[in-house]
Amino acid sequence: VDDTTQINRLEAFSDGVFAIAITLLVLELRLPQSTDTGEGGRLLTHLLELWPTYLAYITSFITIGIMWANHHAMFQIIRRTDRNLLMLNVILLMFITFFNFPTVVVAEYFQAPDGRIAALFYSGTLFVIGIFFNVTWWYAARNPHLLDPQFDQGRSAALTRQYSIGTTLYLIAFVLAFFSVTASVGMCLLLAVFFAFPLRPARRN
Amino acid sequence: VDDTTQINRLEAFSDGVFAIAITLLVLELRLPQSTDTGEGGRLLTHLLELWPTYLAYITSFITIGIMWANHHAMFQIIRRTDRNLLMLNVILLMFITFFNFPTVVVAEYFQAPDGRIAALFYSGTLFVIGIFFNVTWWYAARNPHLLDPQFDQGRSAALTRQYSIGTTLYLIAFVLAFFSVTASVGMCLLLAVFFAFPLRPARRN
Amino acid sequence: VDDTTQINRLEAFSDGVFAIAITLLVLELRLPQSTDTGEGGRLLTHLLELWPTYLAYITSFITIGIMWANHHAMFQIIRRTDRNLLMLNVILLMFITFFNFPTVVVAEYFQAPDGRIAALFYSGTLFVIGIFFNVTWWYAARNPHLLDPQFDQGRSAALTRQYSIGTTLYLIAFVLAFFSVTASVGMCLLLAVFFAFPLRPARRN
Amino acid sequence: VDDTTQINRLEAFSDGVFAIAITLLVLELRLPQSTDTGEGGRLLTHLLELWPTYLAYITSFITIGIMWANHHAMFQIIRRTDRNLLMLNVILLMFITFFNFPTVVVAEYFQAPDGRIAALFYSGTLFVIGIFFNVTWWYAARNPHLLDPQFDQGRSAALTRQYSIGTTLYLIAFVLAFFSVTASVGMCLLLAVFFAFPLRPARRN
Repeated sequence: VDDTTQINRLEAFSDGVFAIAITLLVLELRLPQSTDTGEGGRLLTHLLELWPTYLAYITSFITIGIMWANHHAMFQIIRRTDRNLLMLNVILLMFITFFNFPTVVVAEYFQAPDGRIAALFYSGTLFVIGIFFNVTWWYAARNPHLLDPQFDQGRSAALTRQYSIGTTLYLIAFVLAFFSVTASVGMCLLLAVFFAFPLRPARRN
Repeated sequence: VDDTTQINRLEAFSDGVFAIAITLLVLELRLPQSTDTGEGGRLLTHLLELWPTYLAYITSFITIGIMWANHHAMFQIIRRTDRNLLMLNVILLMFITFFNFPTVVVAEYFQAPDGRIAALFYSGTLFVIGIFFNVTWWYAARNPHLLDPQFDQGRSAALTRQYSIGTTLYLIAFVLAFFSVTASVGMCLLLAVFFAFPLRPARRN
Repeated sequence: VDDTTQINRLEAFSDGVFAIAITLLVLELRLPQSTDTGEGGRLLTHLLELWPTYLAYITSFITIGIMWANHHAMFQIIRRTDRNLLMLNVILLMFITFFNFPTVVVAEYFQAPDGRIAALFYSGTLFVIGIFFNVTWWYAARNPHLLDPQFDQGRSAALTRQYSIGTTLYLIAFVLAFFSVTASVGMCLLLAVFFAFPLRPARRN
Repeated sequence: VDDTTQINRLEAFSDGVFAIAITLLVLELRLPQSTDTGEGGRLLTHLLELWPTYLAYITSFITIGIMWANHHAMFQIIRRTDRNLLMLNVILLMFITFFNFPTVVVAEYFQAPDGRIAALFYSGTLFVIGIFFNVTWWYAARNPHLLDPQFDQGRSAALTRQYSIGTTLYLIAFVLAFFSVTASVGMCLLLAVFFAFPLRPARRN
């Protein structure tokens, strides 16, 4: 009972951080401050010009949503915690929260000469988050007393595979940024859509 | 037990996003930055001049509150989840969080020449949220293994009706914006009040 | 079981709103933007000059904390909900969240010529919140099927008394602002301290 | 049952405040507003120049994460609450939330002539938080009816020791700021790392 209570608070705290990290993204959707409301005909232009920000908002929102679902899946197998796991989770959340910053940078610099740096920063952060998902999961898997005794080996192997593949794909997006900013950022968007709605039918989990 | 845990985290995460989305609205209530505090007699004017922002705050706060109550009602019938439903819920939350932005725009532009664009943006976002409520509910209803086996058919039908009517009314508010900005935004306010406190007595749910 | 779930989500959503409303206050603690970091000797002055903001932060933080404890006490007696109560709670939360704005205004204008308006705005908002606590509680008390069947009549009467007294005291603080800004704001601070740590020994609730 | 419900809401509210306080830190990670996106070659410089902000972000994020874990450990022993404990917890959360402000100040002033004031403000706030952890724990320990009747005396003594040591170390960091800004801030960072991952193997708690 004690251990499950602990996991419940870890989940509640994590859900809170995910919920806030995902919601703060909307604060970046703002009209330019110098906007003059006195003259007509410009609001539509301003709203349309924000398209890179909309794309960044959608990509990052869905990506954090997927991370939340993955975190969720991981803590259906992990049912106990120790101090190390608590702190690994805090560090994982630190990088996920940090992701807000490259989102702002990529939205602002996507079309600027410095777009490459922005794309490297964005995909690189996703790559680092992927690594910390692997580290957290690897720590738990090495400490079987933390896991649900009746957990499904198949699901555990699926998680391991999924985390490795995801991390590798974000490494590819990172490398891609050296060749094409659009390809790198576009790949991050496509990965969000594909991870959200895989082509194969959803398993009833 | 497992499925209920899953639904619990989906609800906790959603409650968090709703709570933050609704609370961030207050950050838009700000005095003009250039305000000089040295001279008296102007604060009252500044506070009163914010009336479109107050109206937008009230309308959006109550509207998100109603969405939360509707989400709540939906997940009293849906008692299991699969990956698709998790992600549909994330996308629904993405639009609800996004609603913060048109709220800011309509508060700023309501009386400006570009008021029409602002009203279209505001009511249009509400219409899109309505559509995604329908999509999420439609997906769950098509997958009966996700539903509470003892759910009340009458309440389910009431939800379906309610979501269709709400979405249609926001479509009307959207179309209305082409004719009158005040009528469109006023309708959104009236809908918030009416949905919050319907004339017929509340059923004991 | 159904009703408890409902109350649980109402509490979770409310706790989220309280937690965010209370935490957003810190965003107002900021150094003046034009601060030049190049020269020494000024940071201390800047930090000390913020004292009205610190006082407003402390008063508002403790006040919202007390409101949270009162909400908490109310929903130990209310164990079911209907649509009206859900929406009354949303409106109560709307005013509590709104309280962030007068906090900012009073911190900025406390010493300015317009301090009176700021103090009226601040204490007036607290008075309105008090009224909505009374309305919400009054609605629940009039609908006994919403209450815990084994609730303690004494505790219920204590709540009724406490809400009336609190609201009356904030009305006095409001009226006081016409005579003295310091007295009005100081009374709000003293009420926060007194409500937090009453002189009589805490009952074991 | 009643008391556990109370503790559950205290925990939920606290988890919310911790989650928001920790997540708001990312809002301080911003490029200088005057940044011109038209010319290339500067984004990388801007991103690298933010290193004191990154360090402050990491230190404060991990530190708040550790505070959350400590709060968590304390409320595994405290299983009931009274009004005083509710309010002591609110005051503890007030200082933890406040910590956001010295984080911003230290990030901005770390290398400036006023760095000493910033370091005193930062470590001093951590010292005060430490004191309030001690006060809260001391209050609960003096009121044994609030504690889990089967709590482990060893774990309770470990908490008492841990809180005293932590507070003393932050007092040292505070005093150190008079001699060296770097040593004081560096000590806060090292304490975060060391508290997060102590050298001795984690006990299976």
